[in-house]
Amino acid sequence: MEFDVVSPPDESVRQAAEERHAQLTKPLGALGLLEELGTWIAACQGQCPPRPLQRPRVIVFAGDHGVAAKGVSAYPSEVTAQMVANFQSGGAAINVLAGIASATVRVVDMSVAVDTTAGDHKVRRSSGAIDTEDALTEDEVQAALAAGRAIADEEVDSGADLLVAGDMGIGNTTPAAVLVAALTGTEPVAVVGRGTGIDDNTWMRKTAAIRDALRRAKPVTADPVALLRTVAGADITAMAAFLAQAAVRRTPVVLDGVVSGAAALLAEELAPGARAWWVAGHRSTEPAHTLVLEQLDMTPLLELNMRLGEGSGATTAIPLLTMAVQVLTDMATFADAGVSGP
Amino acid sequence: MEFDVVSPPDESVRQAAEERHAQLTKPLGALGLLEELGTWIAACQGQCPPRPLQRPRVIVFAGDHGVAAKGVSAYPSEVTAQMVANFQSGGAAINVLAGIASATVRVVDMSVAVDTTAGDHKVRRSSGAIDTEDALTEDEVQAALAAGRAIADEEVDSGADLLVAGDMGIGNTTPAAVLVAALTGTEPVAVVGRGTGIDDNTWMRKTAAIRDALRRAKPVTADPVALLRTVAGADITAMAAFLAQAAVRRTPVVLDGVVSGAAALLAEELAPGARAWWVAGHRSTEPAHTLVLEQLDMTPLLELNMRLGEGSGATTAIPLLTMAVQVLTDMATFADAGVSGP
Repeated sequence: MEFDVVSPPDESVRQAAEERHAQLTKPLGALGLLEELGTWIAACQGQCPPRPLQRPRVIVFAGDHGVAAKGVSAYPSEVTAQMVANFQSGGAAINVLAGIASATVRVVDMSVAVDTTAGDHKVRRSSGAIDTEDALTEDEVQAALAAGRAIADEEVDSGADLLVAGDMGIGNTTPAAVLVAALTGTEPVAVVGRGTGIDDNTWMRKTAAIRDALRRAKPVTADPVALLRTVAGADITAMAAFLAQAAVRRTPVVLDGVVSGAAALLAEELAPGARAWWVAGHRSTEPAHTLVLEQLDMTPLLELNMRLGEGSGATTAIPLLTMAVQVLTDMATFADAGVSGP
Repeated sequence: MEFDVVSPPDESVRQAAEERHAQLTKPLGALGLLEELGTWIAACQGQCPPRPLQRPRVIVFAGDHGVAAKGVSAYPSEVTAQMVANFQSGGAAINVLAGIASATVRVVDMSVAVDTTAGDHKVRRSSGAIDTEDALTEDEVQAALAAGRAIADEEVDSGADLLVAGDMGIGNTTPAAVLVAALTGTEPVAVVGRGTGIDDNTWMRKTAAIRDALRRAKPVTADPVALLRTVAGADITAMAAFLAQAAVRRTPVVLDGVVSGAAALLAEELAPGARAWWVAGHRSTEPAHTLVLEQLDMTPLLELNMRLGEGSGATTAIPLLTMAVQVLTDMATFADAGVSGP
């Protein structure tokens, strides 16, 4: 599968937004990163002032991971499907955070180990245990890529003007860490994190699984689709395609933590230039996430020691984007307000 | 003037909120600082789960400064009154940010150089030029303290459940820097910042003014009221009293940048223990603000390179507090949602 060429946000609109910032009743630059976020959204939309954000959307990609059976997580795999139901009934953290951020949440079951009612794009149940076998077959990786692209198209066609790709899946920080290690040339011990909160014995098992999977990933590191097939899973593969297609469709994205970040590294390989359409919502406590931010050369908006996934860190940052846009649309200019300039 | 004794937020409620966090459908601690913010608000309110925030209020303390005539700012003093009108008509950055944060804005003219329609608590016009004379008389400093206390009482009595003290006043980072230097034992060059965006010549004049005012402040550093009288102004004095009284009235506060921070250092002197009722909304680019955060031993929620004042940094952080509270009130427990624990 090929993605269309990604073109960058509109540079002339970005400049117009910068010029507008200089006319608003504040010293130029005094709102710091909020000003840069506003000019970026304007450039993404291709108009200044930008349109207020009408439909921020959080898509939670749910999937189980065969490697979880190796004892790499603090929680049992059954939690993935239980949390899908929790997202659907509105009781999870992402639902609450999205409510405050005026965003809506959609959960898609890409590869949960049991069947759920969110399976319209489902590729398979769970994934191969990546320390010993491929996560997906060639057909499955292609299906997951097509699903991620289709989900982005559905959302953009339904009016989404800001996207978050969240994750849910017991064991999913293990494939994410492997992908980050493979693409940044990092040793296993430097990417392994505490995930949902693992103890020292689980940490050792997780590190061993990452080491073994990384050995399997090495020969295919230069081929993003083969890498996804070998050590990702349908959820992360779909996220990567979703992030790539969001850029193709000129729709801004707030990246979340390490799973979203691993998918982003792959998306940039699948659709070079896609990263210009993304901003990093936060820095997770997962060590591999900092490697992602360095590789993408991104400064996160928030550093709140979050490590939940679900899109929670990105969604917590959405009000900053809403504010950044409204500053450009709603503030008085020096001329409007009769305020003297410097 | 004396403040009533400040007692800390309710420790038993804080513990109850921590226990509640362990029951919600997420790994304990996975929401990082959002969890700590939620337990803090619960402890401030004395109940768990906490009440949703109903009336966050931003009070902008406006005042001019005699030292501005020495050429320490990029903008003329007339801008202070013009911005008061801009706040009242809703065109300033703080109005826009507060709108997104579901907060309302009140501007109080403590000492603007001309008369405005926000002068119910006005103490005087402008202040003495602090490099050569006292900012206020003894009567004026007492009036400003009483006004700040009264404003906090008015707001709490009107139902405010989260407070921000913002600032507006051309030249006001000069007295703020002097106060911070005096209370932290810092040299003038280490506290002087670019304020609204000053050039090198203005920076030299500002540094000289801070040096001269600091020399005048030294003999009274141990006496907070005398220090405010000598080198603050009615606006910063009222802010200090407001922050102290908010703590007396057990109402949580989000601190803003360097002016709010300087007032906070004084408030902690006026009402020891008040800082337990405050959280640092952001880290401003003003160098003196980092000294404030160190002195108060606070980690700011946001680091967005903001330097506007008006309460803008604090208000940008309000959605984080809203989210923190709603997580405790709205999320499902493991038992409710039928989700397996670790």
